[in-house]
Amino acid sequence: MGVPTAQGMAPKAVVLLSGGLDSATVLAQAREQGYACHALSLHYGQRHSAELDAARRVAAALGAVRHEVIQLDLARFGGSALTDTTLDVPVTGPQNGIPVTYVPARNTVMLALALSWAEALGARDLFYGANAVDYSGYPDCRPEFVAAFERLANLATKAGVEGQPMRVHAPIIHLSKAQIIREGLRLGVDYALTVSCYQADARGRACGRCDSCRIRAAGFAEAGVVDPTQYKTAD
Amino acid sequence: MGVPTAQGMAPKAVVLLSGGLDSATVLAQAREQGYACHALSLHYGQRHSAELDAARRVAAALGAVRHEVIQLDLARFGGSALTDTTLDVPVTGPQNGIPVTYVPARNTVMLALALSWAEALGARDLFYGANAVDYSGYPDCRPEFVAAFERLANLATKAGVEGQPMRVHAPIIHLSKAQIIREGLRLGVDYALTVSCYQADARGRACGRCDSCRIRAAGFAEAGVVDPTQYKTAD
Repeated sequence: MGVPTAQGMAPKAVVLLSGGLDSATVLAQAREQGYACHALSLHYGQRHSAELDAARRVAAALGAVRHEVIQLDLARFGGSALTDTTLDVPVTGPQNGIPVTYVPARNTVMLALALSWAEALGARDLFYGANAVDYSGYPDCRPEFVAAFERLANLATKAGVEGQPMRVHAPIIHLSKAQIIREGLRLGVDYALTVSCYQADARGRACGRCDSCRIRAAGFAEAGVVDPTQYKTAD
Repeated sequence: MGVPTAQGMAPKAVVLLSGGLDSATVLAQAREQGYACHALSLHYGQRHSAELDAARRVAAALGAVRHEVIQLDLARFGGSALTDTTLDVPVTGPQNGIPVTYVPARNTVMLALALSWAEALGARDLFYGANAVDYSGYPDCRPEFVAAFERLANLATKAGVEGQPMRVHAPIIHLSKAQIIREGLRLGVDYALTVSCYQADARGRACGRCDSCRIRAAGFAEAGVVDPTQYKTAD
C-alpha cells in the first residue's frame, strides 16, 4: 500500500506490543508501511512490569498514535511459569517441546483484544510479532495459527461479515532473530529500549540465562552488532 | 459421555455464563452431562452489573464448582451501545443487520479467556451459549464462527498440539428461544434468577423494550409458560 502524506489520512492498524524485541520491530514496520499505529499491550499478571515500561518507551519512540495497556488477570488461571511464581523459569537453555513459560492461550486472548479494538476503531489491520523460527515451541507463534485467527476474525466481526476483511500481519514470522534485528536497525529501532527477559528486574535488567535472553543474545551475535541489553550481572 | 459418580472424577468444563437465559440453560446441560463446571463471566464495561449478579446466583443454583468474574475494560475501545453510554439501546424492536448492541469481538475475547482457563485447568471442553436462531444478527453466534474457534483452539494450545483436542460445545445454537426455555425447565433452571435485558436496573429489573427483552418474552409466550421476568414497569 502507498504511504499517505498526512497522519489523518493514514489507515489505522492495531499493533500488539509486548515491550520485547520482536514486537518493537513489527511496530516500526507497520509505521514504515504508512499505518497510524495503535499499540496494544497486556498487563496479564506476568512476573514483572518492566516489559510494560519498555512497551511505553517503544510506543513513544516509534510514533504510535495511541498506546493502551489493558489489565487482565490471567494469573488467576495459572498454568505458566510466567504467571505462577511457584514455578521456576528454566535457565539451562531451550529444551524440546512446549516450555513451562507458555501462558495458556495468552496470544489468542491478545489477538482477540486487538481484534476488538480494531473493529471499534474501524481498522482492518492487526500486526502480530510472532516468530516461528526462534519460537521456543509456542504453538500460537506458528503460521497456521495466524491463518486460523485471521479466518476466525472474518467470521467473528461485523467488518468481516460486511465484506471488509480483517488482515492479520505477522511480518517476522519466518525471519531469524538476526534478520529481525537487522530489519529493526534499518528502521531505526533502539533495542536498548526493549526488554525480552522472562524475569527482568524492576529496572528492566535481564537475567541473561532464560530462553528468551539466550535467543536474543544469540541474535545480536549472529547479526554481528553490539547487544545493547542491560544485564543484572553487569553491575 | 457417561455421568461420573463422584465430582472429583468428573471431567472439567469451562462454561461461559453471562447471567442471561441462554447460558444458564447451557450450564444446566453441561452439569447434566456430568462435567465439573467452571463458570466464567466477564465484567467488560457493560452498562449494568445486574447480569453479573445474576451470573453469581445462577452459578450457585446450578452447582458450578467454581465461578470466576474477570474484569476487562472493553468500554475503553467503545463501538457498542452496550459499552458506550452515549449510544442509545434500540427499543423499537429487532431490525435487519447487525445491531448497535454488538460489542466488537466480545464473544471472541470471552472464548479466548475460556480457552486460557480450560487449558490451565486441564479441561478439554468449553460450553458457549450462542444461539443462531434468535441471534439478533450477531456474527459471533453462528455455527461457522464456533467451528472456526474450535479449529483455532486446537492450533493455539499445548493441549491441541499434543493431541488432546479441545471441544467447543454450542448445544443451543440451533434451538428457538421457546425450545431453550423448555430444555432449561426440564433441567430445573429457575429463570427468575436470570437477567437478559440490555439496560436492566440495579435490581435486575428489565426494560421490556430492548431486543433482548422482546426475544425473551416471546420465547416464554411461545413455550406457553409463565414469564418470571421482573420488569421495571411492574412497580
